[in-house]
Amino acid sequence: MRLAVKDMAIATGGILIATLNQHDAALLDLHPVDRIRIRKGKAETVAIVDYAKTEHTVPRGHIGLFDEVLQKLGAHGGDQVVIALEKKPESLMHIKRKLDGKELSAGEITQIIEDVVKGKLTDIELTYYVAGNYTRGMSLRETVALAKAMIETGERLHFPRKKLVVDKHCIGGVAGNRTTMAAVPIVAAAGLFIPKTSSRAITSASGTADTMEVLADVTLDIKKIRRVLAKAGACITWGGAVNLAPADDAIITVENPLSLDAEGQLLASIMAKKGSVGSNHVLIDIPVGKGAKIASRKEALHLQREFRKVGKALGIKTDVLITDGSEPIGNGIGPALEAQDVMWMLKNDPRQPYDLRRKSIRLAAEVFEMTGRCRKGEGEKLAERLLHSGQAYKKMWDIIVAQGARIKSTQDIKLGKHTVEVKASCSGRIRHIDNACISKLARIAGCPKDHGAGIYLHHHVGDAVKRGEALFTLYAESPEKLKYAVEMWKEIDGIMINKK
Amino acid sequence: MRLAVKDMAIATGGILIATLNQHDAALLDLHPVDRIRIRKGKAETVAIVDYAKTEHTVPRGHIGLFDEVLQKLGAHGGDQVVIALEKKPESLMHIKRKLDGKELSAGEITQIIEDVVKGKLTDIELTYYVAGNYTRGMSLRETVALAKAMIETGERLHFPRKKLVVDKHCIGGVAGNRTTMAAVPIVAAAGLFIPKTSSRAITSASGTADTMEVLADVTLDIKKIRRVLAKAGACITWGGAVNLAPADDAIITVENPLSLDAEGQLLASIMAKKGSVGSNHVLIDIPVGKGAKIASRKEALHLQREFRKVGKALGIKTDVLITDGSEPIGNGIGPALEAQDVMWMLKNDPRQPYDLRRKSIRLAAEVFEMTGRCRKGEGEKLAERLLHSGQAYKKMWDIIVAQGARIKSTQDIKLGKHTVEVKASCSGRIRHIDNACISKLARIAGCPKDHGAGIYLHHHVGDAVKRGEALFTLYAESPEKLKYAVEMWKEIDGIMINKK
Repeated sequence: MRLAVKDMAIATGGILIATLNQHDAALLDLHPVDRIRIRKGKAETVAIVDYAKTEHTVPRGHIGLFDEVLQKLGAHGGDQVVIALEKKPESLMHIKRKLDGKELSAGEITQIIEDVVKGKLTDIELTYYVAGNYTRGMSLRETVALAKAMIETGERLHFPRKKLVVDKHCIGGVAGNRTTMAAVPIVAAAGLFIPKTSSRAITSASGTADTMEVLADVTLDIKKIRRVLAKAGACITWGGAVNLAPADDAIITVENPLSLDAEGQLLASIMAKKGSVGSNHVLIDIPVGKGAKIASRKEALHLQREFRKVGKALGIKTDVLITDGSEPIGNGIGPALEAQDVMWMLKNDPRQPYDLRRKSIRLAAEVFEMTGRCRKGEGEKLAERLLHSGQAYKKMWDIIVAQGARIKSTQDIKLGKHTVEVKASCSGRIRHIDNACISKLARIAGCPKDHGAGIYLHHHVGDAVKRGEALFTLYAESPEKLKYAVEMWKEIDGIMINKK
Repeated sequence: MRLAVKDMAIATGGILIATLNQHDAALLDLHPVDRIRIRKGKAETVAIVDYAKTEHTVPRGHIGLFDEVLQKLGAHGGDQVVIALEKKPESLMHIKRKLDGKELSAGEITQIIEDVVKGKLTDIELTYYVAGNYTRGMSLRETVALAKAMIETGERLHFPRKKLVVDKHCIGGVAGNRTTMAAVPIVAAAGLFIPKTSSRAITSASGTADTMEVLADVTLDIKKIRRVLAKAGACITWGGAVNLAPADDAIITVENPLSLDAEGQLLASIMAKKGSVGSNHVLIDIPVGKGAKIASRKEALHLQREFRKVGKALGIKTDVLITDGSEPIGNGIGPALEAQDVMWMLKNDPRQPYDLRRKSIRLAAEVFEMTGRCRKGEGEKLAERLLHSGQAYKKMWDIIVAQGARIKSTQDIKLGKHTVEVKASCSGRIRHIDNACISKLARIAGCPKDHGAGIYLHHHVGDAVKRGEALFTLYAESPEKLKYAVEMWKEIDGIMINKK
């Protein structure tokens, strides 16, 4: 059947969709989510059928194509195309089997992931796969197969000549906690090669990519990343700018509405990103504590074992540290305030947050020991020396300059102009600072979009405070947001003080 | 934030969607599937956020609205609207709990179904609910609550003064099998009130609504149905023309890609449609056999028990017959051929198919006995009398005329002009006629769109045939479709003959 193209002027973000007028669809016995093959000259593609119920949307004799399909065909509005029925992808049968509680083979999982990346599955179909993994669980073999398939269907960094390619990853959930930005220059200062890609904030006040963006460009493509690595031996860039494991992004999109996080998918997701950048030594940081993503030590120990198993199966040496995640780490929360903390720490400025320093040294030390860069038990000493000598600080500037510096010195970091001190309502000892509450407050103040917005903690858990003493300073880039944040704090109240 | 409306010229079919340019969305910290409240003057609605990645789709400062949202707001392209963040619906928490294996309360299920009908849930979110029901199973209480919620959120027929409102339903899967069209006039001829709504074919050659459409109009709204019932005491119309249990349609849409059919949902779906038309006595027909939807007697017996339980809980007296579904019933397959079979049977024409007659009498008899219209064991005699006397035939014409007749006599039924006889390739006894294969062949010949297309069986299972004798006649409305069907039959070959 020949149809005239209507440009729907919409990008789906991946899925290939073609919309027919419902009368044409009925004539062809086509139903929503049926597949059709569309041909224009020598170009052809398979797309998923959708209905238009009105002539207004798609008139009879026309086919409404979305951006992705138009691009594949090189078609424009008014062009003639020919369509024919196409079979449903086999991966739908695999997804059905997963929902029925069957274990999928590596080949079946690969087929699903390939179809996801090619835009051959609808959101509904992918959702069933995610729901199957969530309700039925995933075997180790399935997790490993998923990670491999996700790596193989995306862009990759390869370093075949490098024996040691290091990476670190934090499960997240702790406010502040910019240890990646602090540990990467220490590790790189020891001569280790560390191509680090990070994410932006989704629900937190700032992701590593947001914070690094205060200091340097982070939206680098594969070519630019290679150039930075050649110069500095390390990078800290935004993973979203490269097409690493794109199936993972598609899966996360359908997980988000219910905040699902199937364990097997979490493991596969993280390890796939590491595998995509060619890492062969990975350190995972699992912060544990009330208000963190992982609440119990038992859960953390279980995840630790699973990470090791998956890493081993993927040929990636994987070490897992369980750390304290019961309160924010560092004093600054928000892109600029966190960047300032990191730079102060690296240059041994007395204003540095010592909790961030201690944790970064511990992480770097672990990397040194697991890669054989030093003997067991001597990692912390080496990390401390690289920090104290200013070598780590110098390395950080190498990275900043290689990526495209946005500041010339730490003093150039711009904090929000509008500030207010939030004071203790009673005297006593601080018992708990809630990560989620602190993140929420910082977001209300403008994080992560307003780089200068955020919170500067003057106290941590265990400190004694007096009534009226400043607990933290709130920063914002506009007086309205500051005012709104102050009001909201009365409701949130995320700092508990044990009254004397 | 104020935005200018862009008319996206697309109907989603229910879900309320608003598309923002990704830069505007980032400024507002909005993510896909977040909810926003949109206000235009006094009109307001909640919609689900989607991103546009290009200015082409939605420029900055604009909001792309789909038909359903435009209608709710009375808005047009270029209008100004104000948006604000809205919380996620609580029903998402219930869906998450279902995925986690928890039983949902009636209140929680009602909330989910109300949000479905109001277009407040995305396809992804509804898919998780369906996946939860499928993988975790549904308790009787959940099934009943789902049926009730589906009834209450749609249009309804009420007959408060009628003590007996009768309905029948067949699980389907058997080719031909137009017993509804044959049994309804018999039942109505006995003075019973039977408001029957039926579906069109999805994968079969013809649905009851398709076949009835050969004889009369079937696209009747609630008002017209009431008028037909007042005149004839019965109707046979298309359920899709009335908004009965619309949540069920939404659920079926997300079930289709994987052909999922969770038992609890199947039960709730069928009983909700019956409840929506005010039935208080329902007969369910479960055909069993190789090639039917339900393959084993054990499965059928289980379903029988479940139907009775759900019916009882809904206050609907429910009887279940398990019938032979191992081969097509009647000789004609396809809208016109089936309509002809039904009319021949009702008028006692010698060309009538006696298997259809026997089954229709049995179903009508069961209805008579369950409603107390006659004593146990005397139903078949009554049904036979109503048929033989021509009362059922007269009642059928009353229904046809009341709905708007499309023919004046049975001879007006137009069969496809292009025919070919398909012959036995060997002599022997027919062992199996496969329902799915016969349906597929009829569809290839043009069913259900081409009313005159289809198959007329000259033999049934058990018949002895000679090599070269006609097994069936194939009908089509175009020579191309006939030719294609003949070719395909060589591959399908759905009739097994035991060679002598």
